[in-house]
Amino acid sequence: MKSPSDKLILIPEAEYALRLGRLQQALAPVAGAMLVADKANLYWLTGRVFDGFAYVPASGAPLFGLRRCAHLAGPGVAALRKVEDFAAAIAAAGMGTDALALETDILPWSAVERFRRAFEAAGIPGRVVAAGPLVRAVRAVKTPLQLDMLRVSGRRQEAVYLRIPALYTEGMTDYELQVEIEHASRLQGCLGQFRTAGTDMELFMGSVLTGDNADTPSPYDFAMGGAGMDPSLPVGADGSVILPGTTVMVDVNGNYTGYMTDMTRCYAAGTLPAHAMDAHRLSIDICHEIASRAVPGTQAKELYDLALSMAENAGLAHCFMGHRQHAGFVGHGIGIEVNELPVISPRSRDILQAGNVIAIEPKFVIPGVGAVGIENTYLVKEEGGMECMTIAPEEIIQLD
Amino acid sequence: MKSPSDKLILIPEAEYALRLGRLQQALAPVAGAMLVADKANLYWLTGRVFDGFAYVPASGAPLFGLRRCAHLAGPGVAALRKVEDFAAAIAAAGMGTDALALETDILPWSAVERFRRAFEAAGIPGRVVAAGPLVRAVRAVKTPLQLDMLRVSGRRQEAVYLRIPALYTEGMTDYELQVEIEHASRLQGCLGQFRTAGTDMELFMGSVLTGDNADTPSPYDFAMGGAGMDPSLPVGADGSVILPGTTVMVDVNGNYTGYMTDMTRCYAAGTLPAHAMDAHRLSIDICHEIASRAVPGTQAKELYDLALSMAENAGLAHCFMGHRQHAGFVGHGIGIEVNELPVISPRSRDILQAGNVIAIEPKFVIPGVGAVGIENTYLVKEEGGMECMTIAPEEIIQLD
Repeated sequence: MKSPSDKLILIPEAEYALRLGRLQQALAPVAGAMLVADKANLYWLTGRVFDGFAYVPASGAPLFGLRRCAHLAGPGVAALRKVEDFAAAIAAAGMGTDALALETDILPWSAVERFRRAFEAAGIPGRVVAAGPLVRAVRAVKTPLQLDMLRVSGRRQEAVYLRIPALYTEGMTDYELQVEIEHASRLQGCLGQFRTAGTDMELFMGSVLTGDNADTPSPYDFAMGGAGMDPSLPVGADGSVILPGTTVMVDVNGNYTGYMTDMTRCYAAGTLPAHAMDAHRLSIDICHEIASRAVPGTQAKELYDLALSMAENAGLAHCFMGHRQHAGFVGHGIGIEVNELPVISPRSRDILQAGNVIAIEPKFVIPGVGAVGIENTYLVKEEGGMECMTIAPEEIIQLD
Repeated sequence: MKSPSDKLILIPEAEYALRLGRLQQALAPVAGAMLVADKANLYWLTGRVFDGFAYVPASGAPLFGLRRCAHLAGPGVAALRKVEDFAAAIAAAGMGTDALALETDILPWSAVERFRRAFEAAGIPGRVVAAGPLVRAVRAVKTPLQLDMLRVSGRRQEAVYLRIPALYTEGMTDYELQVEIEHASRLQGCLGQFRTAGTDMELFMGSVLTGDNADTPSPYDFAMGGAGMDPSLPVGADGSVILPGTTVMVDVNGNYTGYMTDMTRCYAAGTLPAHAMDAHRLSIDICHEIASRAVPGTQAKELYDLALSMAENAGLAHCFMGHRQHAGFVGHGIGIEVNELPVISPRSRDILQAGNVIAIEPKFVIPGVGAVGIENTYLVKEEGGMECMTIAPEEIIQLD
């Protein structure tokens, strides 16, 4: 038998059952149902972004509501104009709950209040439970299918990065190089979209930083800064000419499948000073050390402490994860969005699990030279250690 | 005397006074103060995106709070780690209010609740007022400086569109053409970022639609649809080869200054059937008719009704603003975000004001051919009539 929502659900039935089961398992102890409305969460659940909602009870089949694309309607999937109609349909199906999990950390205040009123009006005056933490925790453990999609993104991103030296010409600005990398990425099939959770990050398609622009503080929650090209988006390339003796750090969009990898590589024009080369080597060493030590059960903060202590031992703590302004983490979960769990930061309470996919990015800003270091996306393996999903040469690559 | 926030405020002092004055004038009847936290609103107020808040009393000087970029702090601008510290600073300055306007339609529910608790804890237990409608109304009337930034975006967008025929080669897919247009746009200085208010829209850098893909419903609130390249972003180009006898509708990012124009032009491979040419001509006529009739005081819905009646008179209502799925508007305000006020829709209550900037996009989907029609960005002039900010040939342009 096919799923009743076989027109809407794009992922294989077993995969859908797996994801739904994990969500329901997390949901059951805290709420009778969850209303999923965030596009990233809907995509996670169904394999498709759509305009509507999923009402997921703690056990049993969900009910879907569609506001557009009525051709996707069918059994279990109702075409509805308003959330009020959806609440009425849920009540009519006898699927009400006294504790409804809502994405209170994502949805606007007014949307949550409207949901609440709609459910009350439909005779389901349930208490609201914050769904954010439980969904983030579920999404942090990737399924084999999601891992395959991440691996595809990694392969394609690697192919683009390998072409970067060929895209460079002497006298180029950081912005000009970035535009050529974007173009190569799009031709390789990059979707361009850079999904972030919350409001702390904005970025177009990535960051290319050269020289001291890497030391310019940005208002966003990224590992590195940069002034950007315009005060409406103050991050990344600022139009600086790439000069001999400086680095170019490339950290651009790895979203090729809806699941994105995150990779940074460092390039150099001319000869770099030895202390910059040493700091870059240290970044590689930190990545390898973390990748070999991490096992399911490791505390995320231990990995941060490990990275920081290696930076301190090298006398580089002052320029670790920034110089004028420091980022408060050395790694982050990644998948549909760039800022998933676990967070590798000093006060993180996250514990590594098999199936976590984590971008590790120990970076240094060397005044007068630029940013150095690498970033790889790693899978935490069941048997311990991490699989690197972004395989490309890690040493500083000469542009000229 | 310089403004106390002269390091943070990037726009000229008189411009800042103008924007602040307009916001305070709208605020005074409904709330004692507004807490501005949305990045688009902060950019509108200060000319810069920053990580923090502006607390704007209904009269007098605002207080700013910064979470990152401490180098921007100074008199009137405090570097603060948390919103709780900011609420305490407001209370300490004797700037409390019993009615606080918050961006309840934008900020996550949890953020609004945290603000509320922080203000209560600081001894400012004010009632919360929805700031969304008043800020949207204020932002709908552009200042002369904002109009100049929009005109610059329009000029640059035009330059890119004029190059589109040269970017086309026979046998190209819609996606390949889109990637070349994106590249040309970025080289022209396009910032790439496509700001939208709310959660109903997602797009990378624009939409290029050919043939029947224009008739594929999308889950987003755009005038046109398209299947897209991936179910994680189901809109726009889907990889269809551009075939003789079909149209290519190009609607790509006009954000060159932080203030974006919106322009659509239609291209053809080979010869189009006469009914498609006629529908395109009608779109041009609708735009010109609206542009000549609109004056300050005109009801937005009258303009929608005018467009629809012209489509009906031509027997084209069934394919006006879509065919399998119809968009519910024919135009929208634009500026920092693509979906500003006024909305040109059948149930809009908006009244046109001098200084409104509106994208008008009467489009038709012709089965078997594709989308036809144009879109221009217009300024509602004080003396009546509208100034076109996107000047480029409006007829269908041959690609071959």
